[in-house]
Amino acid sequence: MRSVSVIGIGETKMGILPDRNVKDLIQEAGAKAIQDAGIEKERIQALYMGNFNSSYWCIQSHMGPLASETLGLGNIPTLRTEGACASGSLAFRQGLMAITSGLYDVVLVGGVEKMTHQATEIVTTGLASAADFETEVNLGATFPSLFAMMANRYFFEYGNIREDMAMVAVQNHENAMLNPNAQMQKRITVEKVYNGFPVADPLTVFDCSLITDGAAFVVLAATEVAEKISKKRIVEVIGTGHAGDVLALAAKKSITTLDATVAAAKEAYQMAGVMPKDIHLAEVHDCFTITQIINTEDLGFFEKGMGGRAVKEGKTARNGLIPINTSGGLKAKGHPIGATGLSQIYEIVTQIRGEAGERQIGRADIGLSHNLGGTAATCVINIFKGR
Amino acid sequence: MRSVSVIGIGETKMGILPDRNVKDLIQEAGAKAIQDAGIEKERIQALYMGNFNSSYWCIQSHMGPLASETLGLGNIPTLRTEGACASGSLAFRQGLMAITSGLYDVVLVGGVEKMTHQATEIVTTGLASAADFETEVNLGATFPSLFAMMANRYFFEYGNIREDMAMVAVQNHENAMLNPNAQMQKRITVEKVYNGFPVADPLTVFDCSLITDGAAFVVLAATEVAEKISKKRIVEVIGTGHAGDVLALAAKKSITTLDATVAAAKEAYQMAGVMPKDIHLAEVHDCFTITQIINTEDLGFFEKGMGGRAVKEGKTARNGLIPINTSGGLKAKGHPIGATGLSQIYEIVTQIRGEAGERQIGRADIGLSHNLGGTAATCVINIFKGR
Repeated sequence: MRSVSVIGIGETKMGILPDRNVKDLIQEAGAKAIQDAGIEKERIQALYMGNFNSSYWCIQSHMGPLASETLGLGNIPTLRTEGACASGSLAFRQGLMAITSGLYDVVLVGGVEKMTHQATEIVTTGLASAADFETEVNLGATFPSLFAMMANRYFFEYGNIREDMAMVAVQNHENAMLNPNAQMQKRITVEKVYNGFPVADPLTVFDCSLITDGAAFVVLAATEVAEKISKKRIVEVIGTGHAGDVLALAAKKSITTLDATVAAAKEAYQMAGVMPKDIHLAEVHDCFTITQIINTEDLGFFEKGMGGRAVKEGKTARNGLIPINTSGGLKAKGHPIGATGLSQIYEIVTQIRGEAGERQIGRADIGLSHNLGGTAATCVINIFKGR
Repeated sequence: MRSVSVIGIGETKMGILPDRNVKDLIQEAGAKAIQDAGIEKERIQALYMGNFNSSYWCIQSHMGPLASETLGLGNIPTLRTEGACASGSLAFRQGLMAITSGLYDVVLVGGVEKMTHQATEIVTTGLASAADFETEVNLGATFPSLFAMMANRYFFEYGNIREDMAMVAVQNHENAMLNPNAQMQKRITVEKVYNGFPVADPLTVFDCSLITDGAAFVVLAATEVAEKISKKRIVEVIGTGHAGDVLALAAKKSITTLDATVAAAKEAYQMAGVMPKDIHLAEVHDCFTITQIINTEDLGFFEKGMGGRAVKEGKTARNGLIPINTSGGLKAKGHPIGATGLSQIYEIVTQIRGEAGERQIGRADIGLSHNLGGTAATCVINIFKGR
């Protein structure tokens, strides 16, 4: 397949941003990515936009032309992708495919979400639409309650890892302290996680990712084109995987091993020709602390049942065996849903380029991004390598 | 590029369907398409779902895994595409690209919309989200008012074609009389159009497409695979085009020539190696009667300013020079938004196969589908040829 590389990245500060609307967020992150790529915007042939639910929260669908108009990209083709919290990674994968298919040479991929202006019940209802309305939402289930069930089942199968889950939150907050774009730059303790407002047992508010406004963009180019126009370290997409699962939690074969992650990882590792042990860092979907632990196992970084202990032993810290969520993750950098997958890629590319400043890890040549939608009904994984 | 063909089609009856939810619609149309293709569902490697706004109308996002679970397709990768009324065609184009890129050999593409259960103001607000909230919707603009401005400007530039617009409605209703899946099987007259409830001058309710529940699916396969497994006439996708435009009507260069249609048509014709005169039939986006007329000009079927007269002269009738909307179109077959682009393809394939029964036209080897989003901020065109 034709090789594709990331040549530009841009993102906004993540957070509660009452003064900024969807267009402002797109304008900032999109322009940054184009500038970072060092290209004229006329080179961009298509735009893929990840957005989860501005249709509901902003009465704004049709995000493709909204973004291309905002960025002054002319009448290029645009597309919005949606797969719940994986919407941004799906846009990335469509942009990638558009280049591998030979249709385009340079495309822009973006993601945006604006939700903090809405009342809590509207935010919650909008989020819940990523689950099955008929068999879950309509019966009162929200995402914290669904992931709490996964945590409790995990405790039953592999032992109580409550403390390890709290350590995920502590570690991700620690990383976010060094990320200027992070929403929550605040150190927390295991004690604080335990004493947090209870959301759905065993999850407290400190086990949950944030409600976030933000946008992130990347410029993709065929690698042979990237070599001619890029002035920065070229970051090649060496593997990509996309898999799904049934929507409803109750219909899944297992809720402690996520089939979509396992299948997408297999596809991505095979294409990249690498093994889990070859990955130098990863951004792993941590919508809840339990999610990160389960997924680091399903990605093959740790044995099943050992993902919690790995956190406590420091293996996922910035100086550990496999640094996870050096950005601060969804937990502390923030979870601007449609932008989340692209913000993960922003971090991986930043680290591979050696531009991560105070949070820069040691060896960072091969990185992985892992993005889920819903209770792992959608999973997209990408593997990147600096050239 | 790798050749791709349609090997299966299925759609529901379109209409106001109070007894059927999103899953019911997906189940019927999806199963019909798979059965029509004559394949085991295990052959399907990915699913692309067009849906406009179930997030708002049904509190149901994440339509990809919802559909794959409903159809029992296992943990295949899924994706929802959204580009307003072109959402279904965008899903089709992504499915096409997935096969041309070499990633998959057989994919399912679907579209669905469920909206008639909501109160009129909720339907209208949901629809309006396809326009620019900040500069249009928030100031009171709805789609009928935007297209009415296009009609009035067209009258100013090319002369008053009120009667020709009415004839579009009359002709599309005529065609729908012969389509068992059409929502409105009712003959109307020019007189009736004139006397219809005024919506936005010069448009009456009979100039407007319908509010519709429905679903449509197609099975796509690499043509070399299709040749081995298909028992019906193989319908090859010989050309595809996708272009965009600014979102807001006020920002467009012209509102009587639609840049997105012109650009997408150019791309599709070039790829197919055909001219407008080579097309035997077309489904053309007729969200309003004026839209069909402008687009038949921008597609190159008629000179600029002559699209209205062509309708009156019978050139777009089933026995005319270039039959348009033999299905009944969005106007009379119905406009189940996310499914509309795929329902257009359903009609083209049905005609090319010679399976259109009473509404079958004479020569139907090469057909074109044309699908718009918003006020032509998105356009997708596909050209099909029977083998």
